[in-house]
Amino acid sequence: MPQQKKKTTIILFSGDYDKAMAAYIIANGAAAYDHDVTIFHTFWGLNALRKDAHIPIKKGFLEKMFAKMMPHGADRMGLSRMNFGGIGLKLMKHVMKKHNAMPLPQLIEMAKEQGVKLVACQMTVDLLGLKQEELLDGIEFAGVATYLADASEGNINLFI
Amino acid sequence: MPQQKKKTTIILFSGDYDKAMAAYIIANGAAAYDHDVTIFHTFWGLNALRKDAHIPIKKGFLEKMFAKMMPHGADRMGLSRMNFGGIGLKLMKHVMKKHNAMPLPQLIEMAKEQGVKLVACQMTVDLLGLKQEELLDGIEFAGVATYLADASEGNINLFI
Amino acid sequence: MPQQKKKTTIILFSGDYDKAMAAYIIANGAAAYDHDVTIFHTFWGLNALRKDAHIPIKKGFLEKMFAKMMPHGADRMGLSRMNFGGIGLKLMKHVMKKHNAMPLPQLIEMAKEQGVKLVACQMTVDLLGLKQEELLDGIEFAGVATYLADASEGNINLFI
Repeated sequence: MPQQKKKTTIILFSGDYDKAMAAYIIANGAAAYDHDVTIFHTFWGLNALRKDAHIPIKKGFLEKMFAKMMPHGADRMGLSRMNFGGIGLKLMKHVMKKHNAMPLPQLIEMAKEQGVKLVACQMTVDLLGLKQEELLDGIEFAGVATYLADASEGNINLFI
Repeated sequence: MPQQKKKTTIILFSGDYDKAMAAYIIANGAAAYDHDVTIFHTFWGLNALRKDAHIPIKKGFLEKMFAKMMPHGADRMGLSRMNFGGIGLKLMKHVMKKHNAMPLPQLIEMAKEQGVKLVACQMTVDLLGLKQEELLDGIEFAGVATYLADASEGNINLFI
Repeated sequence: MPQQKKKTTIILFSGDYDKAMAAYIIANGAAAYDHDVTIFHTFWGLNALRKDAHIPIKKGFLEKMFAKMMPHGADRMGLSRMNFGGIGLKLMKHVMKKHNAMPLPQLIEMAKEQGVKLVACQMTVDLLGLKQEELLDGIEFAGVATYLADASEGNINLFI
């Protein structure tokens, strides 16, 4: 009887560039070791899934406000520390290039190629006034029930 | 032989409204799927268990200071991002109402009704100068040993 | 056949004194209950492993900047909340003393004595421009593959 595949599930709650990097590095590593991997993006973590472009969509006033103030995509998120209005992240990206560490948008691309399941939490998508057209293609929309079904079989479950 | 119940344990360290919401939504979901669920509140997460009222208690000076500066209960916690002195949270609550998402105090009430075990970490209760009378009724007080006993049998263990 | 030892793995991403305290209290507790325990320090969590002294090392400009702005060791980290430029932490340490709670440097010392495996994430050590000489003796250097090997057998896996 073949051994069951290991499972890794990550809730990405944070909207910080460095925390999202950690999440995607773990996810890509686990996928490389043949785990079934899922990242559930909720609250500010949804920003990692936004397209890096202005998508014109009709929205209510509050939704427009939230959407406007949140970063448009992975590349525009900030560091959780020493961000200094973006300067810290610029320096970090510079150092990352020097050390051949992948920037976040590429880590996300790689995760998709490796078959990591990217999920957007439907409830918080609605709360933050995001629309499907604003988010990356190929992602799924689901809720806590789907998360629990995956995580309760998970070998590694993290909240980031 | 009946299958053992699944177990979910969450450490709620954060004092942010949105993170506490995430913790309680997962906890309530897991309880609905018949998991044994425990939330261990430690450090700033204890604020979610404070009563929404001023309880007159004799305390030392430092304890009074900490107690005064920390939010009195779940409804007075702030967002981890875009709080803007409370305006962000007000907008969020407004949107939540529109989308029929439960506010945090109701999520906590529901957790209690579903039999989620709410634990306050005794050590940090002492450090922050909180008294039992200030915290919600029906919660337990315990330490790291109790947490480890639960979590080492846990299917889903999260630190939030 | 003897039962296998339980395993606890913690990723310490945070550079906050209180979060690192939580990580080390759980780690020490788990070690006392005979778990195999590993703490993987990554990003700002590496500061907990820095020596509390200025170590003169030749570095590039960016690396010098990062290194300069990050706290030199566990005792110089700040609280995640109510730090107030260090005053909050001073008060917290004062209260901890009164309640016989161990300060972070002692918790780390105890972890080492109990055989908790302390790992520094090689990639982020490089990104933040840290050098081996600046970090505590007796720690290991490893990457995501080592983490995954440990965590996929872990009973308790946390991201802090």
